[in-house]
Amino acid sequence: MERQEAEAKLSSLLDAARKEAPIPFSPRDAERAMAVLLTTDDLWEAVRLSHAPMRFLCAFWNQMVKENLLEATDGRLRLTDTGRDFALALGISPAREAVCDTCEGRGVDFRKLFRETAERFIAICQNRPEAIQDYDQGYVTEATTLARIAFVWQRGDLEGKEVIVLGDDDLMSVAAALTGAPKRVLALDIDERLISFINEVAEREGLTNLQAIRHDLREPIPDEWLGAFDTFLCDPTESFVGFKAFVERGLLCLKGVGSAGYFGLTHVESSLDKWARIQKFILESGAVITDLRDDFSGYVNWGYIETMRSWDWLPTKIVPQKVWYCSALYRIELLCKPKVENKRLEGNIFEDEEAATT
Amino acid sequence: MERQEAEAKLSSLLDAARKEAPIPFSPRDAERAMAVLLTTDDLWEAVRLSHAPMRFLCAFWNQMVKENLLEATDGRLRLTDTGRDFALALGISPAREAVCDTCEGRGVDFRKLFRETAERFIAICQNRPEAIQDYDQGYVTEATTLARIAFVWQRGDLEGKEVIVLGDDDLMSVAAALTGAPKRVLALDIDERLISFINEVAEREGLTNLQAIRHDLREPIPDEWLGAFDTFLCDPTESFVGFKAFVERGLLCLKGVGSAGYFGLTHVESSLDKWARIQKFILESGAVITDLRDDFSGYVNWGYIETMRSWDWLPTKIVPQKVWYCSALYRIELLCKPKVENKRLEGNIFEDEEAATT
Repeated sequence: MERQEAEAKLSSLLDAARKEAPIPFSPRDAERAMAVLLTTDDLWEAVRLSHAPMRFLCAFWNQMVKENLLEATDGRLRLTDTGRDFALALGISPAREAVCDTCEGRGVDFRKLFRETAERFIAICQNRPEAIQDYDQGYVTEATTLARIAFVWQRGDLEGKEVIVLGDDDLMSVAAALTGAPKRVLALDIDERLISFINEVAEREGLTNLQAIRHDLREPIPDEWLGAFDTFLCDPTESFVGFKAFVERGLLCLKGVGSAGYFGLTHVESSLDKWARIQKFILESGAVITDLRDDFSGYVNWGYIETMRSWDWLPTKIVPQKVWYCSALYRIELLCKPKVENKRLEGNIFEDEEAATT
Repeated sequence: MERQEAEAKLSSLLDAARKEAPIPFSPRDAERAMAVLLTTDDLWEAVRLSHAPMRFLCAFWNQMVKENLLEATDGRLRLTDTGRDFALALGISPAREAVCDTCEGRGVDFRKLFRETAERFIAICQNRPEAIQDYDQGYVTEATTLARIAFVWQRGDLEGKEVIVLGDDDLMSVAAALTGAPKRVLALDIDERLISFINEVAEREGLTNLQAIRHDLREPIPDEWLGAFDTFLCDPTESFVGFKAFVERGLLCLKGVGSAGYFGLTHVESSLDKWARIQKFILESGAVITDLRDDFSGYVNWGYIETMRSWDWLPTKIVPQKVWYCSALYRIELLCKPKVENKRLEGNIFEDEEAATT
């Protein structure tokens, strides 16, 4: 296939995908969608490696199937001979990974700070509540939670600090309290099961600095928590509205200049356009981004995958066996009093066009 | 010492430091400046660990010396008993590190992609030109250059791509070309020594895709390079004007949407306020930040340390023995045609109030 012919075909594939997936994407996303097919035929591995929104990926792959460039059966994605010619004519190279095996690419060795406490955390997690779809839950691996807390510690946001966790199915509050480093850890969640679990752990393990309170984050933050914390941690739902709600609440809980916040953000459910909107919002709120480590967090596969929104989009359906849903870890730090409001949010804050797991 | 007394003292120290160092900093920077003193008495290790601008650090430490909170002699910084009381009364905890030893905290294992080519690069570096002050040079460790190129490769910005390096004392162009992956690598530098060195390496090693051309980045980018590359790499000087010049030139060289750029940024020479200004500039230019890995790059100590601007500021003078000057690695990706101009820059682009190594 000639380059010119391939480019015309790509252009028509993108037009067709645009009709199915009304979200922002670029030819570079198409390149990412094809590069992974030169590396793996595993559907979920391809999603993970692509760093592109699932809604776009599925729309694009479905078009490729329609054009006989791709075979999608039994959870496998195989380029046809024409499909391979097409990718090569476009000059696309296989997706590569150079991730450090020791730290799973995070750059952080949590064992250096946690030592035997890591095992205690892992033991506690054996009895954790399962993730449920009602609250868009899905928790990270234990190594992820431990590495996050080690990272927070390393950045000086844990030891001697007052820490608030907004939504805590990842049990970050438990890992944080187990270190013995923070002055106080407060976990908020809408899910009674998590509140009971965390408070029971606190009592059983003698973690007097740890407390969990039920709170619906659509509600304004009560006065007593406003400006009361040095650090907030959260892993927001990724609709733009839902995301903003979590992070604004977090910012409102901070004491002020020099206080820090952490959150996760994926490519699965957020286009780079949404990333840019979120980054602008962060800067306009009076914070600076100090760290952005992509693929820091890996999520344990949750039980409701076959009823999530994106299941219907998949070109071939199979339940994932390995970690495929990952997120970037952001750290932000306040440079001034946060410029955000403490207002009530109405309705469904979990969905936008890019959302995939609701 | 009581908390209230300590806070009053901190406030007067900050006021005094503000007179010496007319740059933005916050009480959190003071916390960072003191936290490292609870961890190390090595001057340069304290600078590295602090993640605060050197101009502020030195001003603050000098005030601490004046107030008998700190002893600074023979390259050692030792808190006095009063100084230790002061830090503890403020609730300051020691600075901690949880860096993965295998990848030096980068998260990238360059050996996975480079294999034996890594040794070839290291051998080539034996005869590199030394860093000189005229152009604010200072090159990174070989492991840093290799990890950067592995990271670029992993992000899909190297293989089959046209890559431009704006200022290349780090020899990124050589490492990139050695992989055999890029379609073309062009290195620009003002320094004739580097141009000759890179072109000689290209010839001797048979790297037909590598070329170096002398170019002063204060001059506009010639037409032939505008919109001609998929990826730019640079490690800019950190005055805001100089920094913008490098990155704007890089953006102008890119083909468009989906093209990517990489640059380094330190805390040594840039306050978090400057970081925020740079992040706003990136977003306003039409790009998004996709990665921000702090401390990715470590710099080999350069020969002109005793004549650099910040030498005079130091509370005690000693030549560093280990890597202390580090920078964050940023990756940005274009979401639209870049909104920047290709204009000529006049005068000294290397200095602002925060610059330390010029």
